[in-house]
Amino acid sequence: MNIADLDTPTLVADLDVLERNIDGMAAHCRQLGIPLRVHTKTHKVPEIAKLQVAAGSQGITCQKLGEAEVMVDAGIDNILIPYNIVGKPKLKRLTTLVQRAQITVALDSEETAMGISRQAIADGCVVPVIVELDTGSGRCGVQSPQEAQHLAQQIMKMQGINFQGVMTYPSNIRAKPFIAETLDLLTGDGIPVDVISGGGTGSEAASKELGCTETRSGSYVYEGMTRIGNSEMLAPERCVLRVITTVVSTPTPERIIIDGGMKTFASYPPTPYGHIIEHPDAKIYGMSVEHGHVDVSECSHRFKVGEQLSVIPLHQGMTSNLHNELVGIRGDAVETTWRIAGRGKVF
Amino acid sequence: MNIADLDTPTLVADLDVLERNIDGMAAHCRQLGIPLRVHTKTHKVPEIAKLQVAAGSQGITCQKLGEAEVMVDAGIDNILIPYNIVGKPKLKRLTTLVQRAQITVALDSEETAMGISRQAIADGCVVPVIVELDTGSGRCGVQSPQEAQHLAQQIMKMQGINFQGVMTYPSNIRAKPFIAETLDLLTGDGIPVDVISGGGTGSEAASKELGCTETRSGSYVYEGMTRIGNSEMLAPERCVLRVITTVVSTPTPERIIIDGGMKTFASYPPTPYGHIIEHPDAKIYGMSVEHGHVDVSECSHRFKVGEQLSVIPLHQGMTSNLHNELVGIRGDAVETTWRIAGRGKVF
Repeated sequence: MNIADLDTPTLVADLDVLERNIDGMAAHCRQLGIPLRVHTKTHKVPEIAKLQVAAGSQGITCQKLGEAEVMVDAGIDNILIPYNIVGKPKLKRLTTLVQRAQITVALDSEETAMGISRQAIADGCVVPVIVELDTGSGRCGVQSPQEAQHLAQQIMKMQGINFQGVMTYPSNIRAKPFIAETLDLLTGDGIPVDVISGGGTGSEAASKELGCTETRSGSYVYEGMTRIGNSEMLAPERCVLRVITTVVSTPTPERIIIDGGMKTFASYPPTPYGHIIEHPDAKIYGMSVEHGHVDVSECSHRFKVGEQLSVIPLHQGMTSNLHNELVGIRGDAVETTWRIAGRGKVF
Repeated sequence: MNIADLDTPTLVADLDVLERNIDGMAAHCRQLGIPLRVHTKTHKVPEIAKLQVAAGSQGITCQKLGEAEVMVDAGIDNILIPYNIVGKPKLKRLTTLVQRAQITVALDSEETAMGISRQAIADGCVVPVIVELDTGSGRCGVQSPQEAQHLAQQIMKMQGINFQGVMTYPSNIRAKPFIAETLDLLTGDGIPVDVISGGGTGSEAASKELGCTETRSGSYVYEGMTRIGNSEMLAPERCVLRVITTVVSTPTPERIIIDGGMKTFASYPPTPYGHIIEHPDAKIYGMSVEHGHVDVSECSHRFKVGEQLSVIPLHQGMTSNLHNELVGIRGDAVETTWRIAGRGKVF
């Protein structure tokens, strides 16, 4: 099957670029000497996670328990969930999953640790955990090395829960004193630290310098080694995803309408909505729910109803999250279709 | 089951508010004397569409063919698709659907009309169509009454396609001369106009004044009779949807983190992300992909890990589009769970 035969709008992945991004990051981490644990929240596709593991990732990272369940179902057996698992339904699901695969979870409070401990005791298992440090990101995480020490001490006293180490996000050299002091305090207490998990695409060298035992990189898989921040970076040779769209209306010489809008593209005005590969001079200037509004006043090309246009979405991971399936293409040929199985697994 | 037992984050619908919105719009249109054809793109849930039809809607509107297929599968038999159906795969699906239910499609070009005509002839059916007028919205639609006349004349000459009338969006009294002149031209040509379809929640009276034969209203179903434009309008008595979230971290006295972020809430900064019903003084000030960042510095309440918070999402229809299921609640009781079956049916 050829791209031209696809119904639209369809989310497609350029498999050559995907493989180049996966191999490139694996080589980058090998060269740095930092083990890679890819983050799969960007794609949520088990088949892509398996490609990443095959390329050398020592396991994967899932942001939500539901995504981890999907990945275990697909045969992946080493997963970090860097998220506080809270509440009865989730704790039960966690202990079930821990008995199926090698799962580690991050946490930042005694309440979360206690909940995991209680459920693990009830279910006769042990859950490996790491403590999240807030080294500057201002999200979750204990606020000081002393808090980290206190929480580690509490965890060491609990049954059903096994302290493994610490994590931070994103890896940044400014985190060095925080991490170093935490390690000193824990070592002083005789608490072994086997895991120091760092993260963030582009932070692999920083993870190495911080003394991390692994680095979590996610968005690179679709965007290459650069984060998308402006339209110049929407380069076809770097970005894996495209949405194949069709021109459905040419109401005026200046305006065409394509069949993808805000429910096809994740869009946050006033950033650009996406980049039309075939006609860079055609500018997507607005979107309604199911229509893309394109200004073609700068184009010499005369657009026709029925014409296909390939649009690189500005927000690759967020756009992927709107779709049920991802079509893998190589050149103009359709090679495979993957279900975005982790999509919508918000809990 | 009680709300407190739900895993989170979970999208829930307050069924009392939903029914009040559905009945309120039906009564409003009856009082105005304008037939209602609800637009289901807001919810994409067949069960809700059926409630709307039972309340008096003469049929439904689906923005995409894939959504219409889902609704026909669920037993709804009268659907307008106000969208140019273009391309081989879709045309074949359209003629299949036309043979299963009463389907009308809008179009705005000879190319689209010709495509439908050819496929309908091949499949031995007739597709009812209406011509979309661009009366000021600047999206799809013919640009003048003369263009409408010309397109209608072309359609009248084609086989397999049956001209029914015209549509506009949104209904606005400024469209009156455009529509009146179009009707004059068509009547002068002896072309019968059975359908004049208007649309837009809040435009029901304008549809009546324009002489429309029906009005399409969609977003009212979740938002009541007002469109959400600012946080003051996020009133629990008007908005159907809430996301039940859990506090997963309380890292500082000023900050808590909830378990829903940009893949749970459709959010377009700098507009507010949502309204926390139990604690209006707690402000969601940021979101990462799976975390909501809440400023609680103005709250006297001491938040605890594990506490549930009910958040009214700012963008009800767009937030619904991120979820696979919708849990119907009445008071604190869980009454039903609906699959958002039209979600992700972008083509």
